[in-house]
Amino acid sequence: MAKITNVSPLAPAGFPDLPQIQGAEFAAVEAGIKYSGRKDVMLARLAPGTSMAGVFTRSSTRSAAVLDCQDKIAAQSQSGAAIIVNAGNANAFTGKNGMAATKAVTNAVAETLGVPENRVFSSSTGVIGEPLPHERITNRLEELRADLSLSGMHAAADAIKTTDTFAKGAMAEIEIGGKPVKIAGFAKGSGMIAPDMATMLVYIFTDAKVAQPLLQRMLSELTNLTFNNITVDSDTSTSDTLLLAATGASGAEISTMDGPFTDALHSVMLDLAHQVVKDGEGATKFVTVSVTGAATDKDARTHALSIANSPLVKTALAGEDPNWGRVVMAIGKSGAAADRDLLTIRFGDILVAEKGWVSPAYNEDLGAAYMKNDALTINVDLGLGEGNATIWTCDLTHGYITINADYRS
Amino acid sequence: MAKITNVSPLAPAGFPDLPQIQGAEFAAVEAGIKYSGRKDVMLARLAPGTSMAGVFTRSSTRSAAVLDCQDKIAAQSQSGAAIIVNAGNANAFTGKNGMAATKAVTNAVAETLGVPENRVFSSSTGVIGEPLPHERITNRLEELRADLSLSGMHAAADAIKTTDTFAKGAMAEIEIGGKPVKIAGFAKGSGMIAPDMATMLVYIFTDAKVAQPLLQRMLSELTNLTFNNITVDSDTSTSDTLLLAATGASGAEISTMDGPFTDALHSVMLDLAHQVVKDGEGATKFVTVSVTGAATDKDARTHALSIANSPLVKTALAGEDPNWGRVVMAIGKSGAAADRDLLTIRFGDILVAEKGWVSPAYNEDLGAAYMKNDALTINVDLGLGEGNATIWTCDLTHGYITINADYRS
Repeated sequence: MAKITNVSPLAPAGFPDLPQIQGAEFAAVEAGIKYSGRKDVMLARLAPGTSMAGVFTRSSTRSAAVLDCQDKIAAQSQSGAAIIVNAGNANAFTGKNGMAATKAVTNAVAETLGVPENRVFSSSTGVIGEPLPHERITNRLEELRADLSLSGMHAAADAIKTTDTFAKGAMAEIEIGGKPVKIAGFAKGSGMIAPDMATMLVYIFTDAKVAQPLLQRMLSELTNLTFNNITVDSDTSTSDTLLLAATGASGAEISTMDGPFTDALHSVMLDLAHQVVKDGEGATKFVTVSVTGAATDKDARTHALSIANSPLVKTALAGEDPNWGRVVMAIGKSGAAADRDLLTIRFGDILVAEKGWVSPAYNEDLGAAYMKNDALTINVDLGLGEGNATIWTCDLTHGYITINADYRS
Repeated sequence: MAKITNVSPLAPAGFPDLPQIQGAEFAAVEAGIKYSGRKDVMLARLAPGTSMAGVFTRSSTRSAAVLDCQDKIAAQSQSGAAIIVNAGNANAFTGKNGMAATKAVTNAVAETLGVPENRVFSSSTGVIGEPLPHERITNRLEELRADLSLSGMHAAADAIKTTDTFAKGAMAEIEIGGKPVKIAGFAKGSGMIAPDMATMLVYIFTDAKVAQPLLQRMLSELTNLTFNNITVDSDTSTSDTLLLAATGASGAEISTMDGPFTDALHSVMLDLAHQVVKDGEGATKFVTVSVTGAATDKDARTHALSIANSPLVKTALAGEDPNWGRVVMAIGKSGAAADRDLLTIRFGDILVAEKGWVSPAYNEDLGAAYMKNDALTINVDLGLGEGNATIWTCDLTHGYITINADYRS
């Protein structure tokens, strides 16, 4: 596997000071799944009364752990729950033995913590196609149980990293009906991509009280505004998993979709999603692609993804080249409706192209200066209707090739 | 623009010895459109009685020349015809002036050669968004006309190159009803991709006699088996153009779709398509992705393109890594039907994965040795039905990043 020694230039200054979530305890351990000298398994215990919601990869070759989570997630149980995650081995494309390994782990966690097996959710991230050495996990469960604490979230975030160059955390604190409510979560992923290790995992916890169906609806709708709108290189994992646990310990009950809780959850999810892009393999630019004026929202999304995934656009960004011709190309190839002569393209606030040609006002020196920023926005207005979409991505650099081609995994 | 000094390691030994096609004459000239010290404009004159067929990019931001060709191509005229092509400037996304420049060129060619303006087809390849200096072309038309010759095809193939590292030609000679029939053609393109210069142009000539509707039907159907099945990096040009001219000079008349002429044309088109992939920017591997056993042909194509366009698959190929997990990932994300446990994956003849896991017979050393070949095949059988598809592509290397990001265009 490629040795990643440098932290992404787009990384935040440090891991945030996450608040404790009453009802959610964490522990991490060195189990030696693949790595040595670092923690690689984390356990979370959730108090009785916790609602669980989840969204998962739509890959048709998804992993055993994902299939197992999907079977369990809709249960409206009042029992306690648990999440167990290992790094170093994805337990994906491992045939029937894959599901047996997942069941061995979730059954052992259920027994150790005294929760029903159908309330134990697991994830695995790492090499595809190798058998999961599940005894290395189950042998350490007693130790993990003994270490569970409200302050263990940072250690848990560190334990699930693979090619990540930094641990990703985010939080929000709000007041609902006079009661303080906290949301905290963490994520791993260098985008969808990593050498043999394609996984994005996200775990978010809150002490709000939210019934399972509403919690699931919130999570699904907000995922479409956050994690489903990021792309590093268009490659989708076999194991993507996002779990949200609401312990209810704050006593603040949430009963509607719209409101400050949903807004706060949205901000935490968006923060984590952006951090995943900022740790995209080889990334040197954080790029917002904003498309407006499309015939429909769906068309806007198709255009934005076509721009964000275009290797020619991404290499131009890496080269700090204000190459609007490649943006035109990506719009043209997307298959969604566009009229060349109605397009308007801006880099940040700089008007670059309009009416089917470069703008007379455009100054290439200004465009080139803008491209030197770490964070860039490509604004496209199609002039056709009211559809809009935003996608976040990164550039495509020699670093990407080095990580994915220069070393054998 | 990036300076390309090395010929692709996948280039053929040399330009083929193309046969002369009676009724098709060629000339090339240094017009100084953008380059200096090389020919950059070519003219072809086609005798009265020639049938013309064409296929074009489906980009919604396609260039003026493409729009003009599309208006003209279906005409069943018995007049002579002409093709004029310049390299160095794509005349794409140049607003209303773009069409005026195209019309200036085609009108001048019509006048110089004495053919109707609606029988003059033009292409432009090079920088997007800059006005085409069309006088530099029209000023040289007399010189071009004087130089027209049956033996000018190699010079014409050289004149249309942009970032191409070699000129691409192909030919076939067959006998139809006792009469010798020749097909010869040439192409340019480093895949769909090039810095500011995204274009694939192909021109094929034959002395067979084929009515326009049949010629068009042949060309369209064979394009779906050849040029539409190659991808370098999934980016599609604003200017892709493929023209086929049948002069009829051999006297051999073709009146059916199926037969030796169609087969010969197919082989010429496939040869040129493969040469475009072999000149893909930074390419070091020529890769055939063959998908069988899909639910439908369309599903097979979706899977094959997902594999061929996956940056993770392409970087693994560059790294000579038999990384079948990434092939599984690409199948999983494609959106087409797949069952993880019915998949069979072979690298060349080497069985790698089956029944949802690595094959017990698979030997990683054999896989790694196979990946050192210049030409590689990834065979995927989905085990679901009779659908199949083949896509040709290349790997993704540091050379690609260097050409597209390290230099400002």
